[in-house]
Amino acid sequence: MTAFADLYLRQGADRRLRAGHLWVYSNEIDSKRNTLANYQAGDLVRVLDTQGRLLGSAYMEPQSLICARLYAPGEERALDGEFFTRRLQRALQGREIAFDQPFYRLVYGDSDLLPGVVIDRFGPQLVVQFNNAGIERYRQPLLQALQALLQPEGILLRGDSRARRESGLEESAEVVFGQVPERVPLEENGVQFLAPVHAGQKTGWFYDHRMSRARLAPWVAGRSVLDVYSYIGGWGIQAAAFGARQVSCLDSSAVALEGVMRNAELNGLADKVTVRQGSAPETMKQMIGEGLSFDVVILDPPAFIQRRKDLKKGIAAYRRINELGLRLLAPGGLLVSGSCSMHLGRADLMSALQQAAVRAGCQLRVVEQGAQGPDHPIHPGIPETEYLKAIFARRD
Amino acid sequence: MTAFADLYLRQGADRRLRAGHLWVYSNEIDSKRNTLANYQAGDLVRVLDTQGRLLGSAYMEPQSLICARLYAPGEERALDGEFFTRRLQRALQGREIAFDQPFYRLVYGDSDLLPGVVIDRFGPQLVVQFNNAGIERYRQPLLQALQALLQPEGILLRGDSRARRESGLEESAEVVFGQVPERVPLEENGVQFLAPVHAGQKTGWFYDHRMSRARLAPWVAGRSVLDVYSYIGGWGIQAAAFGARQVSCLDSSAVALEGVMRNAELNGLADKVTVRQGSAPETMKQMIGEGLSFDVVILDPPAFIQRRKDLKKGIAAYRRINELGLRLLAPGGLLVSGSCSMHLGRADLMSALQQAAVRAGCQLRVVEQGAQGPDHPIHPGIPETEYLKAIFARRD
Repeated sequence: MTAFADLYLRQGADRRLRAGHLWVYSNEIDSKRNTLANYQAGDLVRVLDTQGRLLGSAYMEPQSLICARLYAPGEERALDGEFFTRRLQRALQGREIAFDQPFYRLVYGDSDLLPGVVIDRFGPQLVVQFNNAGIERYRQPLLQALQALLQPEGILLRGDSRARRESGLEESAEVVFGQVPERVPLEENGVQFLAPVHAGQKTGWFYDHRMSRARLAPWVAGRSVLDVYSYIGGWGIQAAAFGARQVSCLDSSAVALEGVMRNAELNGLADKVTVRQGSAPETMKQMIGEGLSFDVVILDPPAFIQRRKDLKKGIAAYRRINELGLRLLAPGGLLVSGSCSMHLGRADLMSALQQAAVRAGCQLRVVEQGAQGPDHPIHPGIPETEYLKAIFARRD
Repeated sequence: MTAFADLYLRQGADRRLRAGHLWVYSNEIDSKRNTLANYQAGDLVRVLDTQGRLLGSAYMEPQSLICARLYAPGEERALDGEFFTRRLQRALQGREIAFDQPFYRLVYGDSDLLPGVVIDRFGPQLVVQFNNAGIERYRQPLLQALQALLQPEGILLRGDSRARRESGLEESAEVVFGQVPERVPLEENGVQFLAPVHAGQKTGWFYDHRMSRARLAPWVAGRSVLDVYSYIGGWGIQAAAFGARQVSCLDSSAVALEGVMRNAELNGLADKVTVRQGSAPETMKQMIGEGLSFDVVILDPPAFIQRRKDLKKGIAAYRRINELGLRLLAPGGLLVSGSCSMHLGRADLMSALQQAAVRAGCQLRVVEQGAQGPDHPIHPGIPETEYLKAIFARRD
C-alpha cells in the first residue's frame, strides 16, 4: 500500500485544479493544517480542498514554488509501475496514430499526465529527462515500465534542463539500460539525422518544430536559405532536402556545425550546405555589411524569455533578431520566425515581427503558422504546456 | 490624372497607420479640416497627419465606421488598372508558390493590400466579392486587370457578405464575364468537389480550412466521423477520402446536404457517407439521446461572434457546442474544433474547450493547431485579418 499524506489547500485554491490545472503553488496550501518542511521531495499526497474533498493525487516538491504536482486528478492512485504503464501506453497510442515511424517525443510531462517526465524516442533508443527531484524518486518503476512496453536497446538519462537546475539537480548523462551510442539516427519528414544524445542540447534533438519544418517544402524549392541558430541543421538540412539551391547554417557552436555537415553528408547534400560560426546577431550584422541576401531566412532562437519579468527585454530581442533577418531577406523572400519562449504569446511574436517590418521598411504577409506537433500535446487546462510558435511571413 | 482630396487626421491618429494598419476610423479625422459629408464612397484621398505628411493613399467610405481604407501605404498612387495589375500579380505569385493547382483564394482584402476585395479562384472560374461601395466603384479596372492576368472562362460577382450588407449594398450573384456554371469543380488535398458558386454560402467554398483538413488524414483512417455544420462536406468528404470508415454529415440545409452527397459520389465515396438534417445543437442532443458515438467529431460552426459585444455570449455558444461534441466522442477519440470568429482569440477557444472538457468529464490533449492557409495571409499589422482557428484535441 502506498502511504499518502493529506495536503489541504486554502479556500479558493481548488478552483484552478477543478478547471483542469495540475500545479499547486506553495502559497496555496493551508499552512495551519500542513507544513511544507514535513515533506520530502516525491512524497505522495492526497490533495484536498478545505472541506476535505479529494482533488487528486500529487507528488511533493516542497522546495519549489510549485510545491505539489497532480499526476492523477480526481483519483487516489499510487505512483507505481501499473500507473506508469497505463500512462505510457496512452502516450504511445497517441504518437502511433500521428506518426508512422518511431521518432518522436513519447512523453511530454503534464500534457501526458506525467508531470516532470520527458521521454524522446529515437527508434530503439530512449532519452529520458526528469525535471525535478520529486519524480526522480520514481525512476525505477518508470524505467521498468518503459522497458517492458518498448523493449528498447538503450535508455539514456539526460539531466540538464533549466527546471532541473532550479530544482537543485545535477546535470548529467547516464546510460541506465543497455547501450546508447554517442549519436543515434532519426528520420524527420523523410530526412535522416544523427542526434548527439549524450552531449547535444537537451535530449539531443528538437522534435517540436517537425510540422513547421515539413511546411518549408513549397517555400524553399530552388531558393537560397539561411538557417540561423541552426544547431545540427534540423531546419537547414530539411530545406536542402526539399530542394533549396543553397543553404547556410549559422550557429555559435563549432560542435553543432560539425553536426550540420555530418547530417548534410548523411543525406548526400554536403555540396549544397555551408556553415558559418558566430553569435547570431553579430554575424547577421556582418552578413548585412557584406551585402549578402537570401530567399529564405529561418530564425529558431533559444528562449529569449526565461521568466515573465524578462518579457519586455525579450520582446526587444525578438524584434531585433527579426529585423536583422528581414534585412538579409531578398524581395519576395520568406522569413520563418520561431519562438520557444512560453511567456511570449503568439500575438506578441506577431507584433514583434510587424515592428521589425516597419523598421526594415517592408510589408509582410503571414502565410503559415506552425505550432508544436502532436508529440508535444498542449493540455488546454495548463496554458504553460503551450510554448512553440513558428510564423512564416513573406515580404514584398 | 487621378484627383486626390486631402484627408487630415487628428493628432495621434497616424500612429496605428505608421505601425502598419490600413484603417482610418471616422472619429480619427480632423473634423475642422475635413467634413465626411463632402465625400462620396470611393473618392480617393491622400491621408495626411497633422503636419501634412503623407501616410498613404486611401479610398473613402464616408458612411462607415471605417471611413477610409489605405490601399497604398506611404505612397500617392491611383487606384487604376496598373495598380490592380501589380497587386494581383503579387497575390498570384504568393499562391503559385504555396499551391500546385489553381484552386485558392487569390485575393484576401487588406492582407493583399486590396482592401474590400475578395477573389476565389476555381481553375478557370473566378468569384469576386466587393465588400463595400467604395471599392465597387473600381470594379471595371479591377475586372479588366483580372481578365488580362488570368484569361478566365468566367467571372462571377457575389455580393452577400455581412460587411457588404452593413455597407448598404445589395446581395447578388452576377456573371460579369464569360460563362460560369451553377457548380464549378475544385480539388482540395487531392479530393474533388463541386462548389455552388452562384447560390452557395459566400463564394461557394471555404478554402480557409484547407491546411487543417489535410491534417485530418492520420486521425481518421479506419474511424467513424461526425462532421457538424458540414455545408457541402469540405471536412467530411475529405475524411472519407483519407480512409474514414463511415462519415455522417450534419447540416440544417437540405441543399447543402445534397451537395454533400454529390461530392461523395464524385469521389466514389457515397457508400461511406450519410447525411442528417437539423440544427446542430438540437440534433447533437438527439444523437446523444440515441446513444450514438463517433471516433472523430468535427465542429466547424459559423461565426458565433459577429461583434465584440457578443464575445461573452459567443464563448458560451462555443463551450456548449464543444461540450455536445465531446459527449458524442468515443474514448480515445478526436475533437476538431473550429472557429471563424475574428473576435474569439485562440486562447479563448482553448479555454472554452477546456471548460467543455470539465463539464463533459474528460481529459483533453491538443495534438494539432490549424490556422488559415497561405491564401488567407495575415497582415501582422492588422490583427483583424486573422480569424481562423482549428484545434485538434484527443480525449481520454
